[in-house]
Amino acid sequence: VRARTLPGLPEVRPGDDLAALLVAANGGPFAADEVVVVAQKVVSKAEGRVLALADVVPSAAALALAAEHDKDPRLVEVVLAESAEVVRARRGVLICRTRQGYVCANAGVDRSNTGGEDLVVLLPEDPDGSARALRAALPGRPAVVVTDSFGRAWRVGQAEVAIGVAGLVPVEDWAGRPDADGRPLQATAIAVADQAASAADLARAGKAAREPAVVLEGLGRWVTAEDGPGATALVRARAEDLFA
Amino acid sequence: VRARTLPGLPEVRPGDDLAALLVAANGGPFAADEVVVVAQKVVSKAEGRVLALADVVPSAAALALAAEHDKDPRLVEVVLAESAEVVRARRGVLICRTRQGYVCANAGVDRSNTGGEDLVVLLPEDPDGSARALRAALPGRPAVVVTDSFGRAWRVGQAEVAIGVAGLVPVEDWAGRPDADGRPLQATAIAVADQAASAADLARAGKAAREPAVVLEGLGRWVTAEDGPGATALVRARAEDLFA
Repeated sequence: VRARTLPGLPEVRPGDDLAALLVAANGGPFAADEVVVVAQKVVSKAEGRVLALADVVPSAAALALAAEHDKDPRLVEVVLAESAEVVRARRGVLICRTRQGYVCANAGVDRSNTGGEDLVVLLPEDPDGSARALRAALPGRPAVVVTDSFGRAWRVGQAEVAIGVAGLVPVEDWAGRPDADGRPLQATAIAVADQAASAADLARAGKAAREPAVVLEGLGRWVTAEDGPGATALVRARAEDLFA
Repeated sequence: VRARTLPGLPEVRPGDDLAALLVAANGGPFAADEVVVVAQKVVSKAEGRVLALADVVPSAAALALAAEHDKDPRLVEVVLAESAEVVRARRGVLICRTRQGYVCANAGVDRSNTGGEDLVVLLPEDPDGSARALRAALPGRPAVVVTDSFGRAWRVGQAEVAIGVAGLVPVEDWAGRPDADGRPLQATAIAVADQAASAADLARAGKAAREPAVVLEGLGRWVTAEDGPGATALVRARAEDLFA
Protein backbone atom coordinates (compact mmCIF):
# COMPACT_ATOMS: atom_id res chain seq x y z
CA VAL A 1 0.00 0.00 0.00
CA ARG A 2 1.40 3.37 -0.98
CA ALA A 3 0.07 6.92 -0.51
CA ARG A 4 1.20 9.87 -2.58
CA THR A 5 -0.07 13.43 -2.38
CA LEU A 6 -1.22 15.44 -5.36
CA PRO A 7 0.66 18.68 -4.78
CA GLY A 8 -0.01 21.98 -6.46
CA LEU A 9 -3.78 22.04 -6.32
CA PRO A 10 -4.89 25.67 -6.44
CA GLU A 11 -7.37 27.11 -3.97
CA VAL A 12 -10.71 25.65 -5.06
CA ARG A 13 -13.64 28.03 -5.63
CA PRO A 14 -17.37 27.49 -6.21
CA GLY A 15 -17.97 26.21 -9.72
CA ASP A 16 -14.41 24.95 -10.26
CA ASP A 17 -14.01 21.71 -12.19
CA LEU A 18 -12.46 19.62 -9.41
CA ALA A 19 -11.90 16.59 -11.66
CA ALA A 20 -9.90 18.70 -14.12
CA LEU A 21 -7.82 20.16 -11.28
CA LEU A 22 -7.07 16.66 -9.93
CA VAL A 23 -6.04 15.31 -13.33
CA ALA A 24 -3.76 18.30 -13.87
CA ALA A 25 -2.19 17.79 -10.44
CA ASN A 26 -1.72 14.09 -11.24
CA GLY A 27 -0.11 14.89 -14.59
CA GLY A 28 -2.53 12.60 -16.42
CA PRO A 29 -5.23 9.98 -15.97
CA PHE A 30 -5.48 7.75 -12.93
CA ALA A 31 -5.24 3.97 -12.83
CA ALA A 32 -8.52 2.11 -12.41
CA ASP A 33 -7.23 0.37 -9.27
CA GLU A 34 -6.13 3.59 -7.59
CA VAL A 35 -8.14 5.32 -4.89
CA VAL A 36 -8.32 9.11 -5.06
CA VAL A 37 -8.92 10.50 -1.58
CA VAL A 38 -10.17 14.08 -1.46
CA ALA A 39 -10.81 16.22 1.59
CA GLN A 40 -14.45 17.22 1.94
CA LYS A 41 -13.56 20.88 2.05
CA VAL A 42 -12.46 21.14 -1.58
CA VAL A 43 -15.43 19.08 -2.73
CA SER A 44 -17.78 21.37 -0.81
CA LYS A 45 -16.08 24.49 -2.13
CA ALA A 46 -16.35 23.27 -5.72
CA GLU A 47 -20.03 22.53 -5.11
CA GLY A 48 -20.60 26.01 -3.69
CA ARG A 49 -21.40 24.77 -0.18
CA VAL A 50 -19.97 27.96 1.29
CA LEU A 51 -21.88 30.54 3.31
CA ALA A 52 -21.01 34.03 4.47
CA LEU A 53 -21.93 34.40 8.14
CA ALA A 54 -22.89 38.03 7.44
CA ASP A 55 -25.86 36.67 5.47
CA VAL A 56 -27.10 34.40 8.29
CA VAL A 57 -29.90 35.49 10.62
CA PRO A 58 -29.87 33.35 13.79
CA SER A 59 -33.14 31.90 15.07
CA ALA A 60 -34.18 32.15 18.71
CA ALA A 61 -32.99 28.57 19.27
CA ALA A 62 -29.57 29.38 17.80
CA LEU A 63 -29.30 32.54 19.91
CA ALA A 64 -30.07 30.59 23.09
CA LEU A 65 -27.67 27.72 22.33
CA ALA A 66 -24.95 30.16 21.28
CA ALA A 67 -25.29 32.16 24.48
CA GLU A 68 -25.15 28.99 26.56
CA HIS A 69 -21.96 27.78 24.84
CA ASP A 70 -20.25 31.08 24.08
CA LYS A 71 -20.41 30.55 20.32
CA ASP A 72 -21.20 32.77 17.35
CA PRO A 73 -25.02 32.58 16.99
CA ARG A 74 -24.76 32.78 13.19
CA LEU A 75 -22.47 29.72 13.20
CA VAL A 76 -24.88 27.90 15.53
CA GLU A 77 -27.74 28.75 13.18
CA VAL A 78 -25.89 27.11 10.28
CA VAL A 79 -25.00 24.09 12.44
CA LEU A 80 -28.62 23.58 13.49
CA ALA A 81 -29.81 23.86 9.88
CA GLU A 82 -27.37 21.08 8.95
CA SER A 83 -28.36 18.86 11.89
CA ALA A 84 -31.04 16.24 12.30
CA GLU A 85 -30.27 16.13 16.02
CA VAL A 86 -27.90 17.64 18.58
CA VAL A 87 -26.42 14.55 20.25
CA ARG A 88 -24.41 16.40 22.94
CA ALA A 89 -24.00 20.08 23.77
CA ARG A 90 -21.42 20.57 26.46
CA ARG A 91 -18.44 22.79 27.25
CA GLY A 92 -18.84 24.76 24.03
CA VAL A 93 -18.86 21.64 21.86
CA LEU A 94 -21.88 20.72 19.74
CA ILE A 95 -21.88 17.08 18.64
CA CYS A 96 -24.56 16.71 15.99
CA ARG A 97 -26.08 14.05 13.81
CA THR A 98 -26.10 15.58 10.35
CA ARG A 99 -28.96 15.20 7.95
CA GLN A 100 -26.75 12.66 6.12
CA GLY A 101 -26.47 10.63 9.36
CA TYR A 102 -22.92 11.48 10.39
CA VAL A 103 -22.22 12.24 14.04
CA CYS A 104 -19.54 14.91 14.35
CA ALA A 105 -18.72 18.27 15.89
CA ASN A 106 -20.67 21.26 14.54
CA ALA A 107 -22.43 19.05 11.97
CA GLY A 108 -19.29 19.29 9.88
CA VAL A 109 -19.58 23.08 9.48
CA ASP A 110 -16.04 24.42 9.37
CA ARG A 111 -14.49 27.86 9.81
CA SER A 112 -10.85 26.89 9.12
CA ASN A 113 -9.27 27.19 5.67
CA THR A 114 -12.56 28.41 4.25
CA GLY A 115 -11.01 31.04 2.02
CA GLY A 116 -12.26 34.01 4.03
CA GLU A 117 -12.64 35.25 7.61
CA ASP A 118 -16.42 35.36 7.39
CA LEU A 119 -16.97 32.16 5.41
CA VAL A 120 -18.04 28.73 6.59
CA VAL A 121 -17.91 25.51 4.57
CA LEU A 122 -20.70 22.92 4.91
CA LEU A 123 -20.55 19.20 4.16
CA PRO A 124 -21.66 18.27 0.63
CA GLU A 125 -25.44 17.80 0.40
CA ASP A 126 -24.91 14.19 -0.72
CA PRO A 127 -21.28 13.13 -0.21
CA ASP A 128 -21.77 9.71 -1.85
CA GLY A 129 -23.28 11.48 -4.85
CA SER A 130 -20.28 13.82 -4.89
CA ALA A 131 -17.91 10.83 -4.88
CA ARG A 132 -19.83 9.13 -7.69
CA ALA A 133 -19.86 12.27 -9.80
CA LEU A 134 -16.17 12.83 -9.27
CA ARG A 135 -15.38 9.20 -10.16
CA ALA A 136 -17.40 9.48 -13.36
CA ALA A 137 -15.49 12.63 -14.32
CA LEU A 138 -11.98 11.33 -13.61
CA PRO A 139 -10.15 9.75 -16.58
CA GLY A 140 -9.16 6.19 -15.72
CA ARG A 141 -12.18 6.00 -13.38
CA PRO A 142 -10.35 5.38 -10.09
CA ALA A 143 -12.24 4.79 -6.86
CA VAL A 144 -13.03 8.01 -5.00
CA VAL A 145 -13.27 8.66 -1.26
CA VAL A 146 -14.40 12.01 0.16
CA THR A 147 -13.16 12.47 3.73
CA ASP A 148 -13.52 14.64 6.80
CA SER A 149 -11.78 14.75 10.19
CA PHE A 150 -14.02 13.49 12.97
CA GLY A 151 -13.41 13.39 16.69
CA ARG A 152 -14.10 10.08 18.39
CA ALA A 153 -15.89 9.14 21.59
CA TRP A 154 -13.42 8.13 24.33
CA ARG A 155 -10.29 8.94 22.31
CA VAL A 156 -8.18 12.07 21.96
CA GLY A 157 -7.61 13.61 18.55
CA GLN A 158 -9.33 13.43 15.22
CA ALA A 159 -9.09 10.75 12.57
CA GLU A 160 -9.98 11.14 8.93
CA VAL A 161 -13.05 9.12 7.96
CA ALA A 162 -14.95 8.48 4.74
CA ILE A 163 -18.15 10.47 4.23
CA GLY A 164 -18.48 9.75 0.50
CA VAL A 165 -17.36 6.65 -1.39
CA ALA A 166 -17.62 5.45 -4.99
CA GLY A 167 -16.00 2.26 -6.25
CA LEU A 168 -14.45 1.10 -2.97
CA VAL A 169 -15.84 -1.54 -0.61
CA PRO A 170 -16.73 0.64 2.40
CA VAL A 171 -17.00 -2.19 4.93
CA GLU A 172 -15.64 -5.71 4.50
CA ASP A 173 -17.70 -8.15 6.50
CA TRP A 174 -15.76 -11.12 7.83
CA ALA A 175 -18.53 -12.55 10.02
CA GLY A 176 -18.75 -16.31 9.58
CA ARG A 177 -15.36 -16.69 7.93
CA PRO A 178 -13.08 -19.11 9.75
CA ASP A 179 -10.16 -17.86 11.82
CA ALA A 180 -6.72 -19.51 11.69
CA ASP A 181 -7.96 -22.16 14.14
CA GLY A 182 -11.03 -22.90 12.02
CA ARG A 183 -13.33 -21.15 14.52
CA PRO A 184 -15.89 -18.80 12.91
CA LEU A 185 -14.93 -15.14 13.30
CA GLN A 186 -17.60 -13.22 15.14
CA ALA A 187 -18.72 -9.68 14.42
CA THR A 188 -15.62 -8.74 12.48
CA ALA A 189 -16.22 -6.09 9.86
CA ILE A 190 -13.38 -3.93 8.65
CA ALA A 191 -14.09 -0.25 7.99
CA VAL A 192 -12.00 -0.26 4.81
CA ALA A 193 -12.97 3.21 3.57
CA ASP A 194 -12.38 4.85 6.96
CA GLN A 195 -8.96 3.23 7.18
CA ALA A 196 -8.18 4.41 3.64
CA ALA A 197 -9.15 7.94 4.70
CA SER A 198 -6.80 7.74 7.70
CA ALA A 199 -3.95 6.30 5.65
CA ALA A 200 -4.27 9.13 3.14
CA ASP A 201 -4.25 11.73 5.90
CA LEU A 202 -0.78 10.59 7.02
CA ALA A 203 0.57 11.41 3.56
CA ARG A 204 -0.48 15.05 3.72
CA ALA A 205 2.00 17.59 4.97
CA GLY A 206 -0.76 19.16 7.03
CA LYS A 207 -4.08 20.88 6.78
CA ALA A 208 -2.61 24.36 6.43
CA ALA A 209 -0.34 23.21 3.61
CA ARG A 210 -3.19 22.75 1.14
CA GLU A 211 -2.68 19.18 0.07
CA PRO A 212 -6.28 18.02 0.03
CA ALA A 213 -5.84 15.13 -2.42
CA VAL A 214 -3.95 11.87 -1.96
CA VAL A 215 -3.76 8.83 -4.23
CA LEU A 216 -3.63 5.37 -2.62
CA GLU A 217 -2.15 2.46 -4.53
CA GLY A 218 -2.34 -1.20 -3.57
CA LEU A 219 -5.98 -1.31 -2.48
CA GLY A 220 -7.15 -2.94 -5.71
CA ARG A 221 -8.71 -5.89 -3.88
CA TRP A 222 -11.37 -3.50 -2.55
CA VAL A 223 -11.90 -1.47 -5.72
CA THR A 224 -15.09 -2.36 -7.60
CA ALA A 225 -16.44 -1.60 -11.07
CA GLU A 226 -19.79 -0.63 -9.53
CA ASP A 227 -19.90 2.48 -7.39
CA GLY A 228 -21.36 0.35 -4.59
CA PRO A 229 -23.27 1.32 -1.44
CA GLY A 230 -21.07 4.30 -0.60
CA ALA A 231 -20.15 5.68 2.79
CA THR A 232 -23.78 5.42 3.84
CA ALA A 233 -22.88 1.81 4.68
CA LEU A 234 -20.58 3.19 7.39
CA VAL A 235 -23.42 4.96 9.20
CA ARG A 236 -24.72 2.85 12.07
CA ALA A 237 -28.50 2.84 12.09
CA ARG A 238 -29.82 4.80 15.05
CA ALA A 239 -31.75 1.74 16.28
CA GLU A 240 -28.55 -0.31 16.41
CA ASP A 241 -26.47 2.43 17.99
CA LEU A 242 -25.56 1.84 21.64
CA PHE A 243 -24.53 5.49 21.96
CA ALA A 244 -27.38 7.32 20.24
CA VAL B 1 3.96 6.81 2.95
CA ARG B 2 4.36 3.11 2.25
CA ALA B 3 3.17 0.02 4.12
CA ARG B 4 4.72 -3.41 3.70
CA THR B 5 3.79 -6.57 5.57
CA LEU B 6 6.30 -8.82 7.30
CA PRO B 7 5.21 -12.20 5.97
CA GLY B 8 6.21 -15.56 7.33
CA LEU B 9 5.87 -14.88 11.04
CA PRO B 10 5.26 -18.20 12.78
CA GLU B 11 2.42 -18.71 15.27
CA VAL B 12 3.60 -16.85 18.38
CA ARG B 13 3.57 -18.70 21.71
CA PRO B 14 4.05 -17.57 25.31
CA GLY B 15 7.70 -16.83 25.99
CA ASP B 16 8.63 -16.38 22.32
CA ASP B 17 11.15 -13.66 21.53
CA LEU B 18 8.89 -11.47 19.40
CA ALA B 19 11.70 -9.03 18.51
CA ALA B 20 13.82 -11.87 17.13
CA LEU B 21 10.86 -13.17 15.10
CA LEU B 22 10.23 -9.70 13.64
CA VAL B 23 13.88 -9.19 12.68
CA ALA B 24 13.96 -12.59 11.01
CA ALA B 25 10.77 -11.79 9.10
CA ASN B 26 12.27 -8.46 8.05
CA GLY B 27 15.48 -10.12 6.89
CA GLY B 28 17.60 -7.77 9.01
CA PRO B 29 17.52 -4.65 11.17
CA PHE B 30 14.93 -1.91 10.77
CA ALA B 31 15.55 1.72 9.85
CA ALA B 32 15.32 4.20 12.71
CA ASP B 33 12.61 6.19 10.90
CA GLU B 34 10.42 3.17 10.23
CA VAL B 35 7.35 2.34 12.27
CA VAL B 36 6.80 -1.32 13.13
CA VAL B 37 3.10 -1.94 13.66
CA VAL B 38 2.25 -5.15 15.52
CA ALA B 39 -1.19 -6.57 16.26
CA GLN B 40 -1.89 -6.80 19.97
CA LYS B 41 -2.65 -10.48 19.73
CA VAL B 42 0.91 -11.57 19.00
CA VAL B 43 2.29 -9.21 21.67
CA SER B 44 -0.15 -10.65 24.19
CA LYS B 45 0.66 -14.22 23.20
CA ALA B 46 4.40 -13.62 23.54
CA GLU B 47 3.75 -12.10 26.97
CA GLY B 48 1.69 -15.10 28.03
CA ARG B 49 -1.58 -13.13 28.28
CA VAL B 50 -3.55 -16.24 27.32
CA LEU B 51 -6.11 -18.04 29.50
CA ALA B 52 -7.85 -21.38 29.15
CA LEU B 53 -11.57 -20.91 29.80
CA ALA B 54 -11.61 -24.36 31.47
CA ASP B 55 -9.58 -22.82 34.30
CA VAL B 56 -11.98 -19.90 34.86
CA VAL B 57 -14.60 -20.01 37.63
CA PRO B 58 -17.30 -17.40 36.95
CA SER B 59 -18.47 -15.13 39.76
CA ALA B 60 -22.14 -14.55 40.54
CA ALA B 61 -21.95 -11.21 38.68
CA ALA B 62 -20.49 -12.91 35.62
CA LEU B 63 -23.14 -15.64 35.73
CA ALA B 64 -25.93 -13.06 35.86
CA LEU B 65 -24.53 -10.88 33.08
CA ALA B 66 -23.82 -13.94 30.92
CA ALA B 67 -27.37 -15.24 31.34
CA GLU B 68 -28.79 -11.84 30.46
CA HIS B 69 -26.73 -11.57 27.28
CA ASP B 70 -26.51 -15.23 26.25
CA LYS B 71 -22.74 -15.36 26.61
CA ASP B 72 -20.26 -17.86 28.04
CA PRO B 73 -20.07 -17.03 31.78
CA ARG B 74 -16.38 -17.91 31.88
CA LEU B 75 -15.69 -15.40 29.10
CA VAL B 76 -17.76 -12.78 30.92
CA GLU B 77 -15.76 -13.46 34.10
CA VAL B 78 -12.51 -12.74 32.23
CA VAL B 79 -14.02 -9.61 30.64
CA LEU B 80 -15.15 -8.25 34.02
CA ALA B 81 -11.73 -8.92 35.53
CA GLU B 82 -10.16 -6.86 32.74
CA SER B 83 -12.68 -4.01 33.06
CA ALA B 84 -12.72 -0.91 35.19
CA GLU B 85 -16.32 -0.30 34.11
CA VAL B 86 -19.00 -1.75 31.83
CA VAL B 87 -19.98 1.26 29.69
CA ARG B 88 -22.86 -0.45 27.83
CA ALA B 89 -24.34 -3.93 27.98
CA ARG B 90 -26.95 -4.41 25.32
CA ARG B 91 -28.00 -6.99 22.73
CA GLY B 92 -25.21 -9.39 23.73
CA VAL B 93 -22.50 -6.75 23.39
CA LEU B 94 -20.41 -5.67 26.37
CA ILE B 95 -18.65 -2.33 25.83
CA CYS B 96 -16.11 -1.95 28.62
CA ARG B 97 -13.55 0.54 29.82
CA THR B 98 -10.44 -1.55 30.39
CA ARG B 99 -8.14 -1.07 33.34
CA GLN B 100 -5.77 0.68 30.88
CA GLY B 101 -8.56 3.14 29.98
CA TYR B 102 -9.55 1.82 26.56
CA VAL B 103 -13.24 1.60 25.69
CA CYS B 104 -13.91 -1.44 23.51
CA ALA B 105 -16.01 -4.57 23.17
CA ASN B 106 -15.34 -7.34 25.71
CA ALA B 107 -12.49 -5.30 27.28
CA GLY B 108 -10.31 -6.50 24.42
CA VAL B 109 -10.66 -10.17 25.40
CA ASP B 110 -10.62 -12.16 22.19
CA ARG B 111 -11.62 -15.70 21.21
CA SER B 112 -10.57 -15.57 17.54
CA ASN B 113 -7.17 -16.75 16.34
CA THR B 114 -6.17 -17.56 19.88
CA GLY B 115 -4.38 -20.79 19.03
CA GLY B 116 -6.98 -23.07 20.59
CA GLU B 117 -10.74 -23.59 20.90
CA ASP B 118 -10.73 -23.03 24.66
CA LEU B 119 -8.23 -20.15 24.79
CA VAL B 120 -8.81 -16.43 25.13
CA VAL B 121 -6.22 -13.70 24.61
CA LEU B 122 -6.20 -10.61 26.86
CA LEU B 123 -4.77 -7.18 26.12
CA PRO B 124 -1.20 -6.68 27.33
CA GLU B 125 -1.06 -5.55 30.98
CA ASP B 126 0.75 -2.36 29.92
CA PRO B 127 0.64 -1.93 26.12
CA ASP B 128 2.86 1.19 26.15
CA GLY B 129 5.39 -0.76 28.18
CA SER B 130 5.14 -3.60 25.67
CA ALA B 131 5.82 -1.15 22.83
CA ARG B 132 8.80 0.37 24.64
CA ALA B 133 10.29 -3.04 25.41
CA LEU B 134 9.85 -4.17 21.82
CA ARG B 135 11.42 -0.98 20.49
CA ALA B 136 14.42 -1.42 22.79
CA ALA B 137 14.87 -4.99 21.57
CA LEU B 138 14.60 -4.27 17.83
CA PRO B 139 17.89 -3.61 16.01
CA GLY B 140 17.77 -0.20 14.34
CA ARG B 141 15.34 0.96 17.07
CA PRO B 142 12.33 1.78 14.88
CA ALA B 143 9.19 3.27 16.38
CA VAL B 144 6.71 0.64 17.55
CA VAL B 145 2.91 0.70 17.58
CA VAL B 146 0.82 -2.07 19.16
CA THR B 147 -2.70 -2.12 17.72
CA ASP B 148 -6.13 -3.61 18.20
CA SER B 149 -9.39 -3.46 16.23
CA PHE B 150 -12.00 -1.33 17.98
CA GLY B 151 -15.59 -0.68 17.04
CA ARG B 152 -16.68 2.92 17.01
CA ALA B 153 -19.73 4.74 18.31
CA TRP B 154 -22.13 5.72 15.48
CA ARG B 155 -20.13 4.00 12.72
CA VAL B 156 -20.26 0.52 11.22
CA GLY B 157 -17.17 -1.68 11.23
CA GLN B 158 -13.96 -1.75 13.16
CA ALA B 159 -10.86 0.32 12.68
CA GLU B 160 -7.40 -0.52 13.94
CA VAL B 161 -6.22 1.84 16.68
CA ALA B 162 -3.04 2.24 18.70
CA ILE B 163 -3.07 0.84 22.23
CA GLY B 164 0.71 0.94 22.74
CA VAL B 165 3.20 3.39 21.25
CA ALA B 166 6.94 3.98 21.59
CA GLY B 167 8.86 6.53 19.55
CA LEU B 168 5.95 7.94 17.56
CA VAL B 169 4.05 11.16 18.26
CA PRO B 170 0.64 9.74 19.26
CA VAL B 171 -1.33 12.97 18.82
CA GLU B 172 -0.17 16.03 16.91
CA ASP B 173 -1.78 19.13 18.33
CA TRP B 174 -2.42 21.87 15.79
CA ALA B 175 -4.44 24.15 18.07
CA GLY B 176 -3.34 27.75 17.67
CA ARG B 177 -1.47 27.19 14.41
CA PRO B 178 -2.67 29.42 11.59
CA ASP B 179 -4.76 28.01 8.78
CA ALA B 180 -4.15 28.93 5.14
CA ASP B 181 -6.12 32.15 5.67
CA GLY B 182 -4.06 33.08 8.75
CA ARG B 183 -6.96 32.27 11.09
CA PRO B 184 -5.96 30.17 14.15
CA LEU B 185 -7.00 26.54 13.79
CA GLN B 186 -9.31 25.51 16.59
CA ALA B 187 -9.32 22.17 18.38
CA THR B 188 -7.44 20.34 15.67
CA ALA B 189 -5.40 17.45 16.96
CA ILE B 190 -4.47 14.62 14.65
CA ALA B 191 -4.54 11.09 16.06
CA VAL B 192 -1.32 10.14 14.26
CA ALA B 193 -0.80 6.76 15.92
CA ASP B 194 -4.40 5.65 15.34
CA GLN B 195 -4.14 6.61 11.68
CA ALA B 196 -0.85 4.71 11.43
CA ALA B 197 -2.59 1.67 12.92
CA SER B 198 -5.38 1.94 10.33
CA ALA B 199 -2.97 2.43 7.45
CA ALA B 200 -1.05 -0.67 8.46
CA ASP B 201 -4.24 -2.70 8.66
CA LEU B 202 -4.94 -2.06 4.98
CA ALA B 203 -1.65 -3.72 4.09
CA ARG B 204 -2.55 -7.00 5.74
CA ALA B 205 -4.13 -9.70 3.67
CA GLY B 206 -6.55 -10.34 6.51
CA LYS B 207 -6.76 -11.45 10.07
CA ALA B 208 -7.00 -15.16 9.25
CA ALA B 209 -3.91 -14.96 7.05
CA ARG B 210 -1.55 -14.42 9.98
CA GLU B 211 0.18 -11.23 8.93
CA PRO B 212 0.26 -9.44 12.24
CA ALA B 213 3.21 -7.15 11.52
CA VAL B 214 3.48 -4.27 9.06
CA VAL B 215 6.27 -1.77 8.53
CA LEU B 216 5.35 1.83 7.68
CA GLU B 217 7.84 4.04 5.86
CA GLY B 218 7.57 7.78 5.34
CA LEU B 219 6.34 8.76 8.80
CA GLY B 220 9.76 9.99 9.94
CA ARG B 221 8.45 13.45 10.79
CA TRP B 222 6.55 11.89 13.70
CA VAL B 223 9.26 9.46 14.85
CA THR B 224 11.11 10.60 17.97
CA ALA B 225 14.30 9.50 19.73
CA GLU B 226 12.44 9.46 23.05
CA ASP B 227 9.74 6.86 23.51
CA GLY B 228 7.32 9.68 24.35
CA PRO B 229 3.95 9.65 26.11
CA GLY B 230 2.67 6.50 24.41
CA ALA B 231 -0.87 5.59 23.47
CA THR B 232 -2.03 6.70 26.89
CA ALA B 233 -2.12 10.17 25.31
CA LEU B 234 -4.93 8.87 23.07
CA VAL B 235 -7.18 8.02 26.00
CA ARG B 236 -9.66 10.80 26.67
CA ALA B 237 -9.89 11.52 30.39
CA ARG B 238 -13.22 10.40 31.78
CA ALA B 239 -13.95 13.93 33.04
CA GLU B 240 -13.53 15.33 29.52
CA ASP B 241 -15.49 12.58 27.82
CA LEU B 242 -18.91 13.61 26.51
CA PHE B 243 -19.85 9.93 26.11
CA ALA B 244 -18.67 8.38 29.38
